[in-house]
Amino acid sequence: MHWHQREILLEPRPRGFHLITREVVQQLPELNDIAVGIAHFFILHTSASLTLNENASPDVRRDMEQYFNTFVPENEPYYEHTMEGSDDMPAHIKASLLGSSLQIPISSGALRLGTWQGIYLCEHRNRGGARRLLATMYGS
Amino acid sequence: MHWHQREILLEPRPRGFHLITREVVQQLPELNDIAVGIAHFFILHTSASLTLNENASPDVRRDMEQYFNTFVPENEPYYEHTMEGSDDMPAHIKASLLGSSLQIPISSGALRLGTWQGIYLCEHRNRGGARRLLATMYGS
Amino acid sequence: MHWHQREILLEPRPRGFHLITREVVQQLPELNDIAVGIAHFFILHTSASLTLNENASPDVRRDMEQYFNTFVPENEPYYEHTMEGSDDMPAHIKASLLGSSLQIPISSGALRLGTWQGIYLCEHRNRGGARRLLATMYGS
Repeated sequence: MHWHQREILLEPRPRGFHLITREVVQQLPELNDIAVGIAHFFILHTSASLTLNENASPDVRRDMEQYFNTFVPENEPYYEHTMEGSDDMPAHIKASLLGSSLQIPISSGALRLGTWQGIYLCEHRNRGGARRLLATMYGS
Repeated sequence: MHWHQREILLEPRPRGFHLITREVVQQLPELNDIAVGIAHFFILHTSASLTLNENASPDVRRDMEQYFNTFVPENEPYYEHTMEGSDDMPAHIKASLLGSSLQIPISSGALRLGTWQGIYLCEHRNRGGARRLLATMYGS
Repeated sequence: MHWHQREILLEPRPRGFHLITREVVQQLPELNDIAVGIAHFFILHTSASLTLNENASPDVRRDMEQYFNTFVPENEPYYEHTMEGSDDMPAHIKASLLGSSLQIPISSGALRLGTWQGIYLCEHRNRGGARRLLATMYGS
């Protein structure tokens, strides 16, 4: 049984949905040790999130951003939490809708993703800065 | 410590929310080996998803489909990703809202679900075809 | 390798988003045994959910409740599942949007949450009663 835990610092990105599969995997040589297991990715923030989605067309990522801006609007009249800017409360809501963690199976030393699946960093703040992920990889 | 990984092929289903608990569990005799553990279910696609919800009333599943069609509409004017049909971009969004994986506790050789909980396959494409799940079961 | 599983009974709370980190952690002395691992929290219900979000400002939790009431409305004309009250079908939808489980890394015997992250119980029924969580903690 193997257990590895490693923090990953993601470079700052603008608001939007960003494909980060390669940036993440490059920093996890420990995956090679695991024949069957799980990789758990956990974002240590409440205004950014992680999801899996289509890894080929950049227009999917742009449409995701448009969709979430439309259905999680800024400046809703009932928002009380407005001190940190109009992008802050929608960022918290989007973070809970999309989720803080991903669990991806490991098979034969690599993430076992479907053909079209990639890891997205969902940056919900206009200027969210560098984001920290904690990767926990375990298996046999 | 036990680790089991098995791919499950789900028969094609029409667009909508489908209760698949029995179909899944029947294909996982390995659950019996595990006294305390976790079963991780991972869908290898980006236009279908997995969720847990009410296992009794089919009207819950119909209402879920209506709700998601209403709040994740087809043909939004800002969609750029339209080449694969009007059901495609909404399918990607629904997949991220609902998620690609489930983690269910294992107790005494069986999934430890609440009384009313069942596993739903959420098929977001009109004709999504057969769907593949990867089940990873681990525990002691 | 350690495996611990424990059911937690959460006191009844009114509809809304509630910070429960302290109430949960106090009931899990087993966390101390684990240097590196995962804590899995699983709610055994289909009309309440779990999420991670901002642990400081109560207005975030009030805004979350307002948001979800607005975008998952009661009394939609297409709802068929209405026998258990107007808050029931929206509760099922919210439960799937937010999710039934959380996975939080364990480091050095404690949950490894970001500075601003706390565990929310999302109670979607007007009178949901006591809620049961199953905590599964594992690691080395």
